[in-house]
Amino acid sequence: MAIPVERTRTPRPRPAEKDLGFGRWFTDHLFRVDWTEGKGWHDARVEPYRPIPLDPAASALHYGQAIFEGLKVFRHRDGLRLYRPRDHAARLAASARRLCMPEPDPALLLEGVRALVRADAEWMPSGPGTAFYVRPVMFATEPFLGVRPSHAYTLLVLISPVAGYFSGPPRPLRIWVERSRSRAAPGGIGGAKAAANYAASLLAAEEAKEHGFDQVLWLDGSEHRFLEEIGTMNVLAQLGGAVVTPSLEGTILAGVTRASVIQLLREWRVPVEERRLALDELVEAARAGRLEGLFGTGTAAVVAPIGEVAWEGSALSLPPGGAGSLGERLRAEIAAIQRGDAPDRHGWLEPV
Amino acid sequence: MAIPVERTRTPRPRPAEKDLGFGRWFTDHLFRVDWTEGKGWHDARVEPYRPIPLDPAASALHYGQAIFEGLKVFRHRDGLRLYRPRDHAARLAASARRLCMPEPDPALLLEGVRALVRADAEWMPSGPGTAFYVRPVMFATEPFLGVRPSHAYTLLVLISPVAGYFSGPPRPLRIWVERSRSRAAPGGIGGAKAAANYAASLLAAEEAKEHGFDQVLWLDGSEHRFLEEIGTMNVLAQLGGAVVTPSLEGTILAGVTRASVIQLLREWRVPVEERRLALDELVEAARAGRLEGLFGTGTAAVVAPIGEVAWEGSALSLPPGGAGSLGERLRAEIAAIQRGDAPDRHGWLEPV
Repeated sequence: MAIPVERTRTPRPRPAEKDLGFGRWFTDHLFRVDWTEGKGWHDARVEPYRPIPLDPAASALHYGQAIFEGLKVFRHRDGLRLYRPRDHAARLAASARRLCMPEPDPALLLEGVRALVRADAEWMPSGPGTAFYVRPVMFATEPFLGVRPSHAYTLLVLISPVAGYFSGPPRPLRIWVERSRSRAAPGGIGGAKAAANYAASLLAAEEAKEHGFDQVLWLDGSEHRFLEEIGTMNVLAQLGGAVVTPSLEGTILAGVTRASVIQLLREWRVPVEERRLALDELVEAARAGRLEGLFGTGTAAVVAPIGEVAWEGSALSLPPGGAGSLGERLRAEIAAIQRGDAPDRHGWLEPV
Repeated sequence: MAIPVERTRTPRPRPAEKDLGFGRWFTDHLFRVDWTEGKGWHDARVEPYRPIPLDPAASALHYGQAIFEGLKVFRHRDGLRLYRPRDHAARLAASARRLCMPEPDPALLLEGVRALVRADAEWMPSGPGTAFYVRPVMFATEPFLGVRPSHAYTLLVLISPVAGYFSGPPRPLRIWVERSRSRAAPGGIGGAKAAANYAASLLAAEEAKEHGFDQVLWLDGSEHRFLEEIGTMNVLAQLGGAVVTPSLEGTILAGVTRASVIQLLREWRVPVEERRLALDELVEAARAGRLEGLFGTGTAAVVAPIGEVAWEGSALSLPPGGAGSLGERLRAEIAAIQRGDAPDRHGWLEPV
């Protein structure tokens, strides 16, 4: 499949690598493909990054039919590599099904990502920890007011060149446990990477930030007893020699980094338990000296140590997650695979 | 405050009244006002209805920060009337707070709605039951990837000329009780009129439609025991001489028509109970012959009788909600007030 490329005539400003940050800059082009009822996916193309004219009644703006993905591309000595793109494409398709949207063909999406990355390859930064953060986003465009699935959609892929999420050894995160608000209900759309879930998370996250915390630890929406996820990351606990992480029951995102970490742990013969994990169990384990560490996983941060978990009137003291800790070993191993310094034994990397 | 009006040079096609439907046609103009951090609300204007250029990274598309309202305008012999616009403006402000968005100034919003309705007054249909459906919608426009509130927003107001939701006496609705999926969690954003809530409702509604039902009756997200709301309507039950409706606990929308109905019922000395209402209680009441009727309320349908409520392996038989029923009396009274055939004793109507 040859994807036509319309090159920009007005290149966008390029940041210095020290100013990259995360998600603040976008490259010169985007990939676009449209879907309309009866016609299906059509007009796949790479075109200049520019504003998209949207009808004021476009249903994404009114009824929130919008999903996305986030994956990374790394610079190797002999070219660029996509990290687990098929897993991200499969998750986008799953999100589409949950929100009654047509599934983007994974092969078409991957071909589009490749064409776009090739078109903007000279934007790839080169410093340690830098990458392309690739953002597929799909939203409903049909202009109508009424609660039903749209009959028209646009799928875009954007690229943001990003700095390492942390420079140097990651700073342990301070996490606030949200014990009354909810991100997702059992039977809701918490398992989809839907725009809607993030809208629901903002207020609690803002309040946590005001109190000096980095992110929110969400508990289950029914009883507020069981751990779910941390803002933009899955959560894993080292408990009495095993790693315990909330099972996937439709309320939390099936993180790709979570899957990478579980696979590495199994290879390292560290027992992994995917199950419900109550906050009370963490408290008991900490009291008994059995809580050996807590960390978050996500595409942006890879593996982030958690230094403090607090809620009204209480807090957990956690062992520092520094050099030699399990979290740091996982982070270093995945980062080494991603940049080509360790062998890709799992077939996680794909050439562009 | 004088709101500038840029008139269109390319009027849009106007539908015949018989083809109006609901939410399918839009008038020639829209009201727009923008908000940016540091500058606040600015550049309020009426301009031609046309596509809005949105940055591909605009955060509404990625993180779902979008809210809306829906209110009606009716034709009286001596001009047009807005129905409870201040209540809708207050609810939009409440939705904004819940989603960490700046509150639209109610006075500015009302002035914008008035200016827009005046600009497009000749679009107002005249047949029985017709109206302007006015749709304020506010969404995040800042281009960045990251989970935090946007620093820029656009508020639009659109007008859709609409037919009566039902022609003739309303057909009783067939409702499917959703017993596993959820629309909103306790502590979530179900009480806000957020785009996100509608995205979460689509799959269950599609499945109900496939089985011949009109809408879904949502139960609470914790236990799936208590009634919440019906798709786009609040739900009210006539139980043993009283009207019982789910209390507002942040998981359901505080319907403006719900408030109108409760006020009328109190004037009519019908006891109203706002409280938790279990599906089991409905079943028991039906068995004992104490379930006298069930209806939904919303801006579009006003009051809609429910003829059937079903779930896996079971169904409630309901008294027909025809002429003489409480639901029909409420519908007729509100419709008469809206079109000026009954006195507006509550100050619900405002001139344009």
